[in-house]
Amino acid sequence: MFSDRDEITDVVVIGSGFAGLAAAIEARNAGASVIILEKMLAPGGNSIISDGGIAAAGTEMQKKRGIKDSPELMYNDMLKAGLSLNYPEMVRVVTEKSNEILRWSIDYLGVEYMDRVDIFGGHSVPRCYTPVGVSGSAIIKRQLLKLDEVGIKVRTNSYFKSFIRDSEGKINGVLIRSNYNHKDAESGIDSRIRAEKGVILATGGFGSDVQFRVAQDPRLTEKIDTTNKPFATAEALKEALRVNAMPVHLSYIQLGPWGTPDEKGYGVGARFSDYIVFPYGIVIEPGSCKRIVNELADRKTMSDALLNTGHPCIGVADAKAVEKSGWNISSCLEKGIVKQFNQLEEFASFYELSLNNLKLTVDRYNGYVENRLDEEFHKPILAEACPISSPPYYGIRTWPKVHHTMGGVQINVRGQVLDLDQHPIKGLYAAGEVVGGIHGACRLGSCAVTECLVFGRIAGRNAATKNNS
Amino acid sequence: MFSDRDEITDVVVIGSGFAGLAAAIEARNAGASVIILEKMLAPGGNSIISDGGIAAAGTEMQKKRGIKDSPELMYNDMLKAGLSLNYPEMVRVVTEKSNEILRWSIDYLGVEYMDRVDIFGGHSVPRCYTPVGVSGSAIIKRQLLKLDEVGIKVRTNSYFKSFIRDSEGKINGVLIRSNYNHKDAESGIDSRIRAEKGVILATGGFGSDVQFRVAQDPRLTEKIDTTNKPFATAEALKEALRVNAMPVHLSYIQLGPWGTPDEKGYGVGARFSDYIVFPYGIVIEPGSCKRIVNELADRKTMSDALLNTGHPCIGVADAKAVEKSGWNISSCLEKGIVKQFNQLEEFASFYELSLNNLKLTVDRYNGYVENRLDEEFHKPILAEACPISSPPYYGIRTWPKVHHTMGGVQINVRGQVLDLDQHPIKGLYAAGEVVGGIHGACRLGSCAVTECLVFGRIAGRNAATKNNS
Repeated sequence: MFSDRDEITDVVVIGSGFAGLAAAIEARNAGASVIILEKMLAPGGNSIISDGGIAAAGTEMQKKRGIKDSPELMYNDMLKAGLSLNYPEMVRVVTEKSNEILRWSIDYLGVEYMDRVDIFGGHSVPRCYTPVGVSGSAIIKRQLLKLDEVGIKVRTNSYFKSFIRDSEGKINGVLIRSNYNHKDAESGIDSRIRAEKGVILATGGFGSDVQFRVAQDPRLTEKIDTTNKPFATAEALKEALRVNAMPVHLSYIQLGPWGTPDEKGYGVGARFSDYIVFPYGIVIEPGSCKRIVNELADRKTMSDALLNTGHPCIGVADAKAVEKSGWNISSCLEKGIVKQFNQLEEFASFYELSLNNLKLTVDRYNGYVENRLDEEFHKPILAEACPISSPPYYGIRTWPKVHHTMGGVQINVRGQVLDLDQHPIKGLYAAGEVVGGIHGACRLGSCAVTECLVFGRIAGRNAATKNNS
Repeated sequence: MFSDRDEITDVVVIGSGFAGLAAAIEARNAGASVIILEKMLAPGGNSIISDGGIAAAGTEMQKKRGIKDSPELMYNDMLKAGLSLNYPEMVRVVTEKSNEILRWSIDYLGVEYMDRVDIFGGHSVPRCYTPVGVSGSAIIKRQLLKLDEVGIKVRTNSYFKSFIRDSEGKINGVLIRSNYNHKDAESGIDSRIRAEKGVILATGGFGSDVQFRVAQDPRLTEKIDTTNKPFATAEALKEALRVNAMPVHLSYIQLGPWGTPDEKGYGVGARFSDYIVFPYGIVIEPGSCKRIVNELADRKTMSDALLNTGHPCIGVADAKAVEKSGWNISSCLEKGIVKQFNQLEEFASFYELSLNNLKLTVDRYNGYVENRLDEEFHKPILAEACPISSPPYYGIRTWPKVHHTMGGVQINVRGQVLDLDQHPIKGLYAAGEVVGGIHGACRLGSCAVTECLVFGRIAGRNAATKNNS
């Protein structure tokens, strides 16, 4: 399949998000030559637009705050949210290496985290760490710097077309389109790269691929927005299926319950909902003004509850909630995504709610906060939570958005892609969102970054060192 | 690929259950020559060991009993149980043709049904018809007779190995192993059959394929029993994936909540639970003696509730329940699967229950029956339901078994298999349990027979008449 003109390297990494860059760093550190392919103009994939929050159990930051946590507890949380569809041995790897990977990102990459530990829906305790700048770009930049140090640059505008296999079925290279411009599918020229040691698929999820996601979940038509960039599509995943990778959990597509219909994409409102409304406020259905769910439930439970109402709901918070969260919400207010009101009367009037019912629901919830027990939905009342009674009040319209695709190809604990008969496909590794089975039915917030870095490193190291011949 | 020695036919049908035989009948009636392949010694697949119950809406049998039903109501029930993952247009076809297909089975095939209309979990109204003999063999036999009339016999001991494609990718034949004996994987000899018009995949589900099902749902190890025959495996489905059929919903694997650990396979106890305990009795968790779920919930809700207890539960019924159901339970009693007791004291003693708690739960449930309102679990109390108070009492241990695989390959409304890019794979059709997407997350009882016959006929007709050249 190859000619003398074709490029040769040890390891080809497809994709330049958290997982791909972690794989490249590790493969290089293991002594392999590495080429990283990226179809877009710039590296970083969807990772760069995420908030970069990473989950880890048993950390110093937790101990400092008296938070009791363990890999075992994190494991149990992931399996509970995942409805036990997760591969247990994969979840063990992620949770047991979670603290180590957080330290790696700090000590080796040099990522700086905010002095806070957050809780998101489905986690039993606060275990989520957010980089300074609240953006995945903080991690991506540091990964790129590391690669720069060893002379590796991401090859942008390089579109992966298909795998190349040798006569025995081993993946030993890729067909790519160089000088590709994503705005013109015909652009660029084809070439081959021979990968002597392995190819690592780290192409992310398919949240923006309406055709593919509708085939898996017919509800997710183009009418449902997504937090993903438009390039988060399924073509590389389909190539893996064409070489007989085992597909797993493709129909488990995560909706972010913190979406708002008042802006496109992830936007600024998600953070307001996730860090302020859900832990310290409530979400109500506008017709009844009643709460519909434990606002700290996992994303699937929350999104299903929202979708079942048939229309956007309303998030309610107050000044104390904002204060407790420690967040600055000025950009949310400036953009009009979050509305501010001096009294509940104004709040009810703006969102066309029954003031009486709104007050009843707020009073009832405030009683739960005072008693530290949510009798209706069993939401964990945080130690620092206060009743919703301190003006100004803040509101946001809430409606889910496609956020993450739990499904993908199956891998083993060494990052090797498994085929339909559960044998490793020689020469092929994968990590990150293109992999299925780690989160099961529902990924918990911040666990993806952990998983991308943990399995990115594993895939990179094994691709570089494993004898595939 | 073909030589002069290879056999030629218009249509090859792989599998001889409800769907395969319906496809063969229809293809033949449309003028095509047909070869039906069956890997086992005898035709019928898993269909022949099912109870043969078929669901249909708006039937004469319902009207005679004053049951108000419609395809629309059946559609809504299927989508509700399927968590709206079902393809709506496929469910429309099944529900709108449900009465027609029931009539076809009666008028054309000559199947006789019992004079009863049953309700199973997740259906809003009774709409399930059971053949005389309470076995799918009643339908299979009639299908085989029809084929016999036109000179078609099922070729048993014929193992499908792989699809053959022409240079343009059209499926135009199959590689098979004739004189195959399933007890000896090396037995038989390879040969090719050229299919001039089409190949129809009707190979059923993969409920007995532990390796494949564990990859999709790691809980379903060999420790979970199945109602399926051991030959219900994934090898033909994998061949379809190897020619790039779109996989859908593979991880939605249905457990039958009416299983009992006291016998292998489907057994005799399932009918007792499904027709007597669930509609007229209760299921309790032995530790607390409390009910755990609406016993007429869909199979997924019920099975998940049972699995969540971590151990077998106990079904409770009485003489009136048996009487109302109209079933003879002597075989259940003879085999010791169902136990009979003169008093609740004996019942509690045998199953090591707290008599006091058992009585409390039965009394509470009897109150719901009298008030026609289940305040705890909102189970629909049937018009003819009676309190559980007429000895003898009957008990059965209840634990789910793998029963049906909702996932498989994607097809369109013409029965054509779709590829990863949502284009029909030329020459390839599918019907029955090997198809995914019609039942979504959860198949309702009796809807599979309807779907097998409806889409079997559609696939057969289109394979025989469509110009695939």
